[in-house]
Amino acid sequence: MGTKNWNEQFENLRINGARLQKTIEISAKIGGTENNGVQRCSATDEDKEMRDIFAGWVKDCGCELTIDEMGNMFAVRPGKNRDLGAVMTGSHLDTQRPGGRFDGILGVLAGLEVMRSINDAGIQLERDFILVNWTNEEGGWYPPACMGSGVWMGNITKEWAYDRKDRDGKTLFGDELERIGYKGDFPCDHKKWNVEAAYELHIEQGPVLWTEKIQIGAPKGILCLHWYDIWLEGTANQVGPTPMKNRNDALLAFSEMNVVVNKVAHQMGDMVATVGEIQNYPNSRNIIPSKVHFTVDIRSWDDDHAIEAWRLMKKEFEMIAERRGCPIKTEEFWKVEHAPFDKALWDRVVESAEELGFSSRRMVSGAGHDMSEVNKVTRGAMIFVPSIDGRSHVEVEDTPWEDCTRGGDVLLRCILKTASEV
Amino acid sequence: MGTKNWNEQFENLRINGARLQKTIEISAKIGGTENNGVQRCSATDEDKEMRDIFAGWVKDCGCELTIDEMGNMFAVRPGKNRDLGAVMTGSHLDTQRPGGRFDGILGVLAGLEVMRSINDAGIQLERDFILVNWTNEEGGWYPPACMGSGVWMGNITKEWAYDRKDRDGKTLFGDELERIGYKGDFPCDHKKWNVEAAYELHIEQGPVLWTEKIQIGAPKGILCLHWYDIWLEGTANQVGPTPMKNRNDALLAFSEMNVVVNKVAHQMGDMVATVGEIQNYPNSRNIIPSKVHFTVDIRSWDDDHAIEAWRLMKKEFEMIAERRGCPIKTEEFWKVEHAPFDKALWDRVVESAEELGFSSRRMVSGAGHDMSEVNKVTRGAMIFVPSIDGRSHVEVEDTPWEDCTRGGDVLLRCILKTASEV
Repeated sequence: MGTKNWNEQFENLRINGARLQKTIEISAKIGGTENNGVQRCSATDEDKEMRDIFAGWVKDCGCELTIDEMGNMFAVRPGKNRDLGAVMTGSHLDTQRPGGRFDGILGVLAGLEVMRSINDAGIQLERDFILVNWTNEEGGWYPPACMGSGVWMGNITKEWAYDRKDRDGKTLFGDELERIGYKGDFPCDHKKWNVEAAYELHIEQGPVLWTEKIQIGAPKGILCLHWYDIWLEGTANQVGPTPMKNRNDALLAFSEMNVVVNKVAHQMGDMVATVGEIQNYPNSRNIIPSKVHFTVDIRSWDDDHAIEAWRLMKKEFEMIAERRGCPIKTEEFWKVEHAPFDKALWDRVVESAEELGFSSRRMVSGAGHDMSEVNKVTRGAMIFVPSIDGRSHVEVEDTPWEDCTRGGDVLLRCILKTASEV
Repeated sequence: MGTKNWNEQFENLRINGARLQKTIEISAKIGGTENNGVQRCSATDEDKEMRDIFAGWVKDCGCELTIDEMGNMFAVRPGKNRDLGAVMTGSHLDTQRPGGRFDGILGVLAGLEVMRSINDAGIQLERDFILVNWTNEEGGWYPPACMGSGVWMGNITKEWAYDRKDRDGKTLFGDELERIGYKGDFPCDHKKWNVEAAYELHIEQGPVLWTEKIQIGAPKGILCLHWYDIWLEGTANQVGPTPMKNRNDALLAFSEMNVVVNKVAHQMGDMVATVGEIQNYPNSRNIIPSKVHFTVDIRSWDDDHAIEAWRLMKKEFEMIAERRGCPIKTEEFWKVEHAPFDKALWDRVVESAEELGFSSRRMVSGAGHDMSEVNKVTRGAMIFVPSIDGRSHVEVEDTPWEDCTRGGDVLLRCILKTASEV
């Protein structure tokens, strides 16, 4: 293989940053919040509205649009030689509740801008170029995350995904996907596609690039992600008449456990561990907490390291539960192994950034992405641009437009290079 | 003064335990829950239904019923000499959400049973006998607690009480009290009444009597109660890409603070301190907590001791907030000083229990009661009966019927004695 079809036209081609900005601003209005964020969870009315617009945009690009059983949207721009594996890019148009205007969205809409720019230049690529909008990457309303790419890859079944309930426990994901008209007929299965390589452009969602003032990040892969649920049982009693020594205070036991989570993550290093969610019952000022549910999120480049961290945490949790007289139940809710990207594509991201004159650094991705799934069945890599102050999954999430354009240009260059390989 | 009207009829009079049980069982159906508890918050439809029935019962006893501006219900049974101060008893018919069948309710309905028994025996007392249902002792739907007795005593104004919002922030207490027809015209003011002494029969709500197998408790008074609210500000970020050292995790800061609350309470002794309530935002598994609100409840026999405990806690809270980069705001929400009861009435409770052949012990009340307020403007005392396993403010709250009857008999004897004093 070689980039023998590379030429001066490819060398000088750039995306239209102003058009990309305008496209992102149109998207930001759909589910837009008062505080400049977006709330557009998968399988909601806002999701449908955005999908309809996106479908129009890719059709205007001359693409054939395929919607699979999970609602994943594949816009295909045919290449000269359709027997060659395609080059794919994409991310997700759904958000957290609420989330920002760039998370996922930049990857899809910069992919669209790449397609428009290639069209404008009248280039016919050697390979098919596929732009994807993956369904429900966030799991914001229907957990868990990466549902569309997860079914496509084969990690979970579509039936299981359809049966997921919303956070209020009232509706099923499959029913609502059908309701908005995006439960397609095409099999949700990577084996139905011939993909040679895939890229995903994304905001970093962390502080590294912004703090170090670097323009492009090239992650070597995605950290593993281990999610656990923990339930504690205490004894509800009126606080005043119950002496300290007679108590089974589930919230106190939780508090000691959260301190342990933080301690283990610091002591072991090369990992992050977080308690993000807690429910406390009956949650009344003058009643001793009788039930607590909480979550633990552990991420590391090394799966065994993460598993060892959980082993240490669980051991201490059990000692605390015993001492506080608060029986404990733990459950592994979700596990994604660390995902190293393709070395050649990873190098290509760095090389493309350098050729374009952008500063860059190699790094890891702490957040999971659709690429965690896609990378398992094809060669994959990601391109990061800075997040202002490292903020994401919040309404104030932001990335300078110049950085969006730089990311789009690196994506364009990577796609042109890979699509030129024959 | 002396009990010169005491006679053999008084000596042998007992309440009708079976009738008391039946009365409590009728009450337990109004707002009754599936799990044998009761949910009947003040100024709700259930509260109205119970009040209507109670009004019928006291009128059947020949009482004159006065409803004051706070909905407090005073059933007066006239004595021979109406210029003498009355003997009063009562508690509350409202519950936690949900709560049990005895908390407060026993005190009102045993008071009713005492009145019925005195009626049955055809006794005319020297003094007026007043039975009270105090409004919103629990603060279960409209915080804070002891609202009716608090206004009556003069601790808070009725206007302030009317303006309290429900826990969802949608309705005002005063509006709803009016809606159910129990915003009366009579001034809510203890100075409008001439009360010589007051008793309140209540379940212990703690484990002491049940554990020690003692039938009657005679508290020397009620612990002080100090309520605080604490708010922490963190920084919401995606957990994966945010290194441990770059975090401002408000839930982790909270957890360390809860450990401090427990530590200070143990180290100082002679007190209880509890975090019962917490709100965590955005409360999402993969986002670093950016905001936490929690409560601290401190109780002790010694007000200065409680204040010193809060000083120590607050100092450590501020150090934690500083270290975690999570700005803190604290507020004193409610404060009730410790309430020592009248020594003569306290002795009378113990003496009456002994005369009736019941085991008894002197103790303190860890929970606040309407008597915390009433005791400030007249001579007061309480009578405790055991709570099974010390459980209360929960649906499984329970007290054996024999203990309810014993409590009612002690109450009857105390009232007869005080009403005989001229």
